[in-house]
Amino acid sequence: MPSIILTDAASDTSAGPRKLSAADFGLAGDHAWSVAWRALRGGRRDGVDLIELDNGAFSLAIVPTRGMGLWRARFRGVPLGWRSPVLDGPVHPAFVNLADRGGLGWLDGFDELMVRCGLTSNGAPYEVVTTNPDGSVARRETVGLHGRIANIPAHHVSVRVDAEPPHAITVEGRVAESTVFLTQVEMTTTITTEPGSNRFVVRDEFVNRSDSPGSMQLLYHWNLGPPYLGEGAEFVAPIESLAPRDPRAAEGLGHWTTYGAPEPGFAEQVYLARLRGDGPEGRTLALLKAPGGTRGVVLRFRNAQLPCFTLWKCTRGPAEGYVTGLEPATNYPNPRPFEEARGRVVPLGPGGRFVAETAFEVLEGAEAVAAAEAEVAALQAQGAPTIHPKPVEPFTAAG
Amino acid sequence: MPSIILTDAASDTSAGPRKLSAADFGLAGDHAWSVAWRALRGGRRDGVDLIELDNGAFSLAIVPTRGMGLWRARFRGVPLGWRSPVLDGPVHPAFVNLADRGGLGWLDGFDELMVRCGLTSNGAPYEVVTTNPDGSVARRETVGLHGRIANIPAHHVSVRVDAEPPHAITVEGRVAESTVFLTQVEMTTTITTEPGSNRFVVRDEFVNRSDSPGSMQLLYHWNLGPPYLGEGAEFVAPIESLAPRDPRAAEGLGHWTTYGAPEPGFAEQVYLARLRGDGPEGRTLALLKAPGGTRGVVLRFRNAQLPCFTLWKCTRGPAEGYVTGLEPATNYPNPRPFEEARGRVVPLGPGGRFVAETAFEVLEGAEAVAAAEAEVAALQAQGAPTIHPKPVEPFTAAG
Amino acid sequence: MPSIILTDAASDTSAGPRKLSAADFGLAGDHAWSVAWRALRGGRRDGVDLIELDNGAFSLAIVPTRGMGLWRARFRGVPLGWRSPVLDGPVHPAFVNLADRGGLGWLDGFDELMVRCGLTSNGAPYEVVTTNPDGSVARRETVGLHGRIANIPAHHVSVRVDAEPPHAITVEGRVAESTVFLTQVEMTTTITTEPGSNRFVVRDEFVNRSDSPGSMQLLYHWNLGPPYLGEGAEFVAPIESLAPRDPRAAEGLGHWTTYGAPEPGFAEQVYLARLRGDGPEGRTLALLKAPGGTRGVVLRFRNAQLPCFTLWKCTRGPAEGYVTGLEPATNYPNPRPFEEARGRVVPLGPGGRFVAETAFEVLEGAEAVAAAEAEVAALQAQGAPTIHPKPVEPFTAAG
Repeated sequence: MPSIILTDAASDTSAGPRKLSAADFGLAGDHAWSVAWRALRGGRRDGVDLIELDNGAFSLAIVPTRGMGLWRARFRGVPLGWRSPVLDGPVHPAFVNLADRGGLGWLDGFDELMVRCGLTSNGAPYEVVTTNPDGSVARRETVGLHGRIANIPAHHVSVRVDAEPPHAITVEGRVAESTVFLTQVEMTTTITTEPGSNRFVVRDEFVNRSDSPGSMQLLYHWNLGPPYLGEGAEFVAPIESLAPRDPRAAEGLGHWTTYGAPEPGFAEQVYLARLRGDGPEGRTLALLKAPGGTRGVVLRFRNAQLPCFTLWKCTRGPAEGYVTGLEPATNYPNPRPFEEARGRVVPLGPGGRFVAETAFEVLEGAEAVAAAEAEVAALQAQGAPTIHPKPVEPFTAAG
Repeated sequence: MPSIILTDAASDTSAGPRKLSAADFGLAGDHAWSVAWRALRGGRRDGVDLIELDNGAFSLAIVPTRGMGLWRARFRGVPLGWRSPVLDGPVHPAFVNLADRGGLGWLDGFDELMVRCGLTSNGAPYEVVTTNPDGSVARRETVGLHGRIANIPAHHVSVRVDAEPPHAITVEGRVAESTVFLTQVEMTTTITTEPGSNRFVVRDEFVNRSDSPGSMQLLYHWNLGPPYLGEGAEFVAPIESLAPRDPRAAEGLGHWTTYGAPEPGFAEQVYLARLRGDGPEGRTLALLKAPGGTRGVVLRFRNAQLPCFTLWKCTRGPAEGYVTGLEPATNYPNPRPFEEARGRVVPLGPGGRFVAETAFEVLEGAEAVAAAEAEVAALQAQGAPTIHPKPVEPFTAAG
Repeated sequence: MPSIILTDAASDTSAGPRKLSAADFGLAGDHAWSVAWRALRGGRRDGVDLIELDNGAFSLAIVPTRGMGLWRARFRGVPLGWRSPVLDGPVHPAFVNLADRGGLGWLDGFDELMVRCGLTSNGAPYEVVTTNPDGSVARRETVGLHGRIANIPAHHVSVRVDAEPPHAITVEGRVAESTVFLTQVEMTTTITTEPGSNRFVVRDEFVNRSDSPGSMQLLYHWNLGPPYLGEGAEFVAPIESLAPRDPRAAEGLGHWTTYGAPEPGFAEQVYLARLRGDGPEGRTLALLKAPGGTRGVVLRFRNAQLPCFTLWKCTRGPAEGYVTGLEPATNYPNPRPFEEARGRVVPLGPGGRFVAETAFEVLEGAEAVAAAEAEVAALQAQGAPTIHPKPVEPFTAAG
C-alpha cells in the first residue's frame, strides 16, 4: 500500500501544498476522490495545516495542527458539524491557553465535528495544590477542561491508498502528548473511507512510550448542529442505565431523547449512560435522527473500548452554539480524580497499548434511519433501560 | 468604493505581500499614498502581519495580528509612539501569556501607540474563585490586565479608497473576541485618513454575535513619548472632575497637568476624570502639548461613547518607558467587578451594537496648538473643574 | 571580521534558508565547514528557526527560536545530547505554556544538550500572592520552573568568521527577556568554534537595558545521555563542598560520582556543590567520563562567574529520559526568594553588564580523559572535599 508523507518531524520532512489523487498512488483510470493539504492563513487560523479528504461523496476537513481533529464534513453537499461561536476557526493552538479562564481556555478553540478529549485527563477543570515540606504552597495548578490532545499538532501525517478495490483511502497522523516526568503517550490515528462511501472510520492506537507505567483517559466529542439537529430531532441508543449529571439535567428527563428548538441562553443538559452492546466486545451504536426522520447520523463503537457514553444537549440560540454532543469515552467527563477513584482510567504499562475505533455513518432516507433504529431496538430488547431520576453514583456524585 | 481584501478567514482568502497604490483602486494620475502589507520575520515578531498606511504625510503601522492596534506612526518624519522596554515588538500573541505573571502577561507585548483594552474586561487583574457544591475550589482564575482584544488577530483585513476626492483611504479589520459560553463580540474597525492629512479616525463598531445578552468594556490606550512628551510637556483637557487613583497619584496633584523629565524608577501616577463636552453627544478633546508649545497631538471623541478618561503619567527613564497614556474609555481601569457595580459596562443585547470613534490629529506650530487650547478653554468655560485631593468614589475606592 | 546577518528585528531583516560556507566570507581555498539556516516545519517544531554549524568535525544545532539553546551536537558522528521524552522537538515556544502544570510547563519543551535557565529566575516553581489594600487576593502567580529565556526567540542572529587562521567561526544571537515594569535584560551570546576543533565556547553577555537597577539569575543546564552516560560513567570535578538537595539525593551519597544503568521510574537525585578553582577567577572544570573511560566531555568555566554547581542524576529508563545534567550557575535551583536571601542573584545596575563563558570539549581516547582527570586532581589537591551527609544551608534548606 503506497504511502505519501506530508509531514514527518523525525525525518525532517514536510511537503508544501499538495492535492493528491489516484494517479499519485499509481492507480490508473478515473477516480473521483482527492486529498488536499495546505496551511491556512489569517486570523486565529494562521499556520493551521488542513487536510481535505474528499471520497467523491463525503468530504472531511482534518486538522493535523489540532491533534488530528475533524473540523467539519460534508456529505453530498449537506454539512456535518455545527456553527460554533468561535467564529474564525480552526484555531491555532498558539491562540488557545488551556490554563486560562480558570481552566476553560479549551473552549476558545472548540468548533469541531469531532474533537478528542484527553489524554492525561478530560472532563471538568479541577485544582491541584502541591505543598512544600513546610506546608506553604509550592505550586497551584488548575487542570483544564478536556485536556491537551486537541491542541497538539501531529508530528507525522501521511496518506495511503489500498492497491486493491475499493481502494480505501487512509489519512494517518501521529500526535504525542509527551513531556518530561509526566504523560508520554503517542497516538496514531487512521481515518479511513472508501471512495463514494457514506462512512468513515477513526481508529486510534495509543502507546505509552515511557519505560514506566502510565494511564490515559479519552473522550470523543462528536458535535452536530443543523440540519441533523433541530426541533424534534431524536437521540436513539440502546440504554442500559442513564443518569443526569446534575439537577439541571434532571429537569429535562421527561423528554431527554428529544431536542427542542434553539433557545437563547439554554443551560446545557448532560446525561451519563451505559449502553447495551452485542457480543464479547459489546458492539453498539448511537443515532441522531434528524427532524422528520429522513436523515440521521450513526456512531458505531464498542463498549469494550469506550464503555462510558455522554450525551450533551446544548440547544442554545443558532448563533451561540445550537449543538448536541454524542460522546463515547473511556470515562465520564468528571474531574479525573473522581473517575480514577471509580476505575475509569485506562492503565498503560511500559510500552502498553490501547485501541479505540469509531465508525461514523450518514443515513439518507427514512429506510436507512429505520434500519438503524431497528438495530438499536434489537439491543434494547436485552432489557429495559434504568433511568435514574437524579444524579447517582457511580456516574457522578449523588445529588 | 472599490475594496481589496488582504485576508478573510470566512472566504479562505489571504494575499501575499503587497503594496497597494491608487492605480490598484482604479484612480488615474499621481497619488503620493500607499498601503503595504506583509508578515514580519524573526524574534518575537515572527509571523506578525503588518500594514503600513502612508497617506503621503502621515504613516501608520497597523497590526492585524495584534487586534488591529496601531504600533506606531510618523508624521512628516516625526515619530509618534514611545520607546517601550519591549525591545523587539510588535510581539506575536503566541509569545504573550495573558494569564502569566499573575495576570500581568499583557505587558510583555505592550509597545503600541494605540492599543485597545477589553472587551470582556479591561483594567487591573483580579481573581475569581469558583467553588464546587462541596465547597472545594473548582477553578481559580486570575483575570488579566487589560483583556484579550489586543492579542487576537483580525480574521478580515481589507482596504478601500473613496472614488471621490479627497479619496479617503480606509483600512478595515474585524476581530472576534468570541468563545463558547462567554463573550461573543466582534469588532469592525475602520482606520481612515485622507491623502496628505494630519489626522486619522479610528471608528470601531462592536456587535454582540450571540443570541443572548452580553456586555463589554473598552479603553483606548494612546501612548506617547518624545518628542511630544518631554520635560515641560502639558496635558490640556476640559475637566469636569478628576481624582487620583491612589495615594501615589495624589502626591502629584500639585502639578498633574505637567510632565517632568525622565526619572529612572518613577512610579506611575494615574488620574481618573470626567471631561466636559459639547452638544448632545458631549464632543470633547484632550491635548498633549509638547515642551515649548509648538507641537502637539489631539484626541477627539465623545462622552456619549467614551465617558471615562484616564491619564497615565509614567515618566520613567528613557530606556524603561518614558511615556504618557491618554485613555478615553467606557470605564475606568479598575477591576471589572468594581466597574460593573457602578454601571460602567456597556450592555449589548442579542445582536446589539456599540460604536466608538476617536480622531487623532497632529498639531504643528504654535498657532495650531493655541487653537486646540482655545477649544479646550471654551469647554472648560462651562464650569470650574472639581479636583479631588484623594481617591474618591465613584472613580475608585475611596482612600 | 565580515559578518552575515540572518535575522535582525531592529533593521527589519530576515534571510531565507541559506547555507553559508567560507566563500561567503571571502575566504579562498577549501574549507570543510558550513553554517546552515532554515525554519523547521510540522508538529510542535513548526516555525522553529534552526542553525546547523558544522566545523568539519563538530556539528552543533543551535535554536534561535528557543533562546539560542543548543538542541544537540555530534562530534565525528557520535551524538551529544539526550533522548528526551519530548518526542518531536525542538518545540516552538507557542506550544510551551510556562505557567501551566503548576509552573512545570517548561518541561514540555525540554530536550536540549544545553538550555539556559533564567533570567528573572531559575529553579523550582513558587507561588507569589499579591493582595489588595483590603486584604483580598489581587493576583496569584506561580513563578514557573527555570524561567523564560529558553522560550524567547532571538531578535538578532548573525554569523562571522575570523579573517585570520584558524578562521574561528562565530554564531551570534541576541535574546531580550524584556517587558514593561520588570526584567529588561538582553543577552548577546556568541558560540564560537574553530574548523576541525573538538571544542566550542559559549560566551554570554547580559546587559540591563533599564535605567533602573535590576538583577538576574542564570543556570546552564548541560544534558548528556548515551554514549557518554551509561552504567559506570563517572562525574569528576574538584569539589570544595557538596550537599544533597533532599533526602532522596542523600540516599545516593555513597556512590554519587558514579552512574547506574537505566532504571525505569528512577527518582532524580540532585547535588549542590562548590568547586575548587585556579587563579583569581577560579578557573575550573567538570568532567563526565563515559563507561570504560575512553571518552568524555568537559565543561570549563570560572567560579568568579558561575560559582554554584548543580549535578542532576536522572538515570531513568532509556525512553523516559536517561540523562545527567552538569549545571554551572550563578545560584542553586531553589526558588528565587531562597537564593536572593543568600545573596545568590546577580545585581545589574542601570546599563550594568554580566558575562559568563563556558567551553565544551569532547575527549577522545583514554589519554585525553586521563589528562582531564589530572587537571581535576591538581585542583582537588587544594584540600579534601566536604561532603555533607544531609541537606544543609546555605545550599538548601537544612533537612
